[in-house]
Amino acid sequence: MYRKEIKVLDCTIRDGGLINDYQFSEKFVKAVYRAICDSGVDYLELGKKLVESEDYPRSKYGPWNFSDDDVVQRIVDSYQGKHRPQLSVMFDVGRVDIATLRDKKDSPIDMVRTACYVHQVDKGLDLVKRCKEKGYATTLNIMAVSAAIEAELMEALEDVAKTPELDFLYLVDSYGAYYSEQVTHMLNLYGKYVPREKLAFHGHNNIQLAYSNTQQAIIDGVNMLDATINGIGRGAGNCCLELLLGFLKNPKFDVRPIYRVIQEEFVPLRQEIEWGYNDIYGISGLMNQHPREAMKFRANREKRDNCYDFHELVTRQDVGPV
Amino acid sequence: MYRKEIKVLDCTIRDGGLINDYQFSEKFVKAVYRAICDSGVDYLELGKKLVESEDYPRSKYGPWNFSDDDVVQRIVDSYQGKHRPQLSVMFDVGRVDIATLRDKKDSPIDMVRTACYVHQVDKGLDLVKRCKEKGYATTLNIMAVSAAIEAELMEALEDVAKTPELDFLYLVDSYGAYYSEQVTHMLNLYGKYVPREKLAFHGHNNIQLAYSNTQQAIIDGVNMLDATINGIGRGAGNCCLELLLGFLKNPKFDVRPIYRVIQEEFVPLRQEIEWGYNDIYGISGLMNQHPREAMKFRANREKRDNCYDFHELVTRQDVGPV
Repeated sequence: MYRKEIKVLDCTIRDGGLINDYQFSEKFVKAVYRAICDSGVDYLELGKKLVESEDYPRSKYGPWNFSDDDVVQRIVDSYQGKHRPQLSVMFDVGRVDIATLRDKKDSPIDMVRTACYVHQVDKGLDLVKRCKEKGYATTLNIMAVSAAIEAELMEALEDVAKTPELDFLYLVDSYGAYYSEQVTHMLNLYGKYVPREKLAFHGHNNIQLAYSNTQQAIIDGVNMLDATINGIGRGAGNCCLELLLGFLKNPKFDVRPIYRVIQEEFVPLRQEIEWGYNDIYGISGLMNQHPREAMKFRANREKRDNCYDFHELVTRQDVGPV
Repeated sequence: MYRKEIKVLDCTIRDGGLINDYQFSEKFVKAVYRAICDSGVDYLELGKKLVESEDYPRSKYGPWNFSDDDVVQRIVDSYQGKHRPQLSVMFDVGRVDIATLRDKKDSPIDMVRTACYVHQVDKGLDLVKRCKEKGYATTLNIMAVSAAIEAELMEALEDVAKTPELDFLYLVDSYGAYYSEQVTHMLNLYGKYVPREKLAFHGHNNIQLAYSNTQQAIIDGVNMLDATINGIGRGAGNCCLELLLGFLKNPKFDVRPIYRVIQEEFVPLRQEIEWGYNDIYGISGLMNQHPREAMKFRANREKRDNCYDFHELVTRQDVGPV
């Protein structure tokens, strides 16, 4: 499936950081940066850019939760090769301080992606405008839309449509609940408000559909796609970058540096932190639920694989009138 | 996706048996049988029905490689409930003795599925006719078509079209190499020779697409679908039965007995034998290769996760003129 317009964004560090409170070592992040550079991937998201707070103290959260410019610069300077991906960071509505964002011309960052829920879209778009003023490329990643009221989403999308400062609008399958026809339905909905060339897709693998849904987005004309190395990410994780590059068949990509960094860095990491599909996340995805409950269940080492118990737990919550 | 015509065939024991030489304990098979009965699944394949040979001695291969009627009957008799799936066994062309197959009226088996490669389709269809003569429902499962020459496949399909004794023709993604548009392409090809209601699909999960490809087959009108509990099967395994039932939303199915048998029987089994997606099978699927090489690579416990090395190994085989 070669289409030259397609861009790939690797968010290994940002989505993976959700598992380990952004405590990746600088050595690890440099290895990922090198692999992404060498593989020809278009964008790399190095972390969130949150402000320190009571909820997010630096004593608990590692550097990739804050993405300070000097730390990012050290990563960039660690590589001597030619190809450089555009760098992005993620904003969470309500957890950022726009005043601390330097102008693009003084920063190693190229793009700011703003994540928000449907009811926060106005605040999200405000951040988008401010980031654009400072010279950044912008995205809006509306989370958890599979559990949103469609009428409310459409209202929010009307505001999105009036925001020319937005470069990309992401369809985000936060709960890993969509299958192909639903991806198409949602992209058609988004496409009523935003030109197709501005649409982007971010999947999750709760029911093993992150990769196939990303393929479906491609089939539906989306040209901006998220993936992570080895599918690392919270819960069931994301679309595997190595599979996506294998599918895209664009000669500008080289998958070998990705397999190399998996072998050297991710295989050992798998002994320390868990990610990827399992029965528990599967149930969570089929139920279109936030993975919170599933992650809590997985944290119990003795009972983590008791999928029948988990299924009973989450389906019984649905029983009875409300 | 509720469509009342859809039938599900569980081939847990038959496809899973490829991993452990069909050495499942009778206790385990009875547990699977009970779960399938209780869940309302339509068909259950208990094993292959091969003849003992030098290649397949009973000293090495367990009972589910031979599926003797008395053994099958013991499984059936172990369950007291009401719903009974139709039982199937698999024939491999060249490894069976049709004379040992009793008439349907004297056997607990309902359906014989004949597996063959493209060049064996004539032999496969001969077995199909003989099975039909003995009173069985029949299928033909043409393997490895993703690596077949399409003109040869079409020639074989012409013979298939002339065989009214055939009840179902399977599109089999043996190498787990197809994605959705290719499934559609192949089903459209098969649909030129066989009515759509006779088409069936069997996927593999090498690139995490067994479930999504099965969904695509459903979208394309296929009503006979294979799956296995927990996706158990050779290499990367199969479409997960529990995910498929969750998708189908047919009130006749109850997924809870499946999660129960996973929790009680499959979670412990995972400590003994390996199946499911990993980087090595992913490379194998992307390369459209028989999983033989990947399985051999996985057998080396120290180097099994060295995906870069495996990628180099299999891609370098392609280098140079032939």
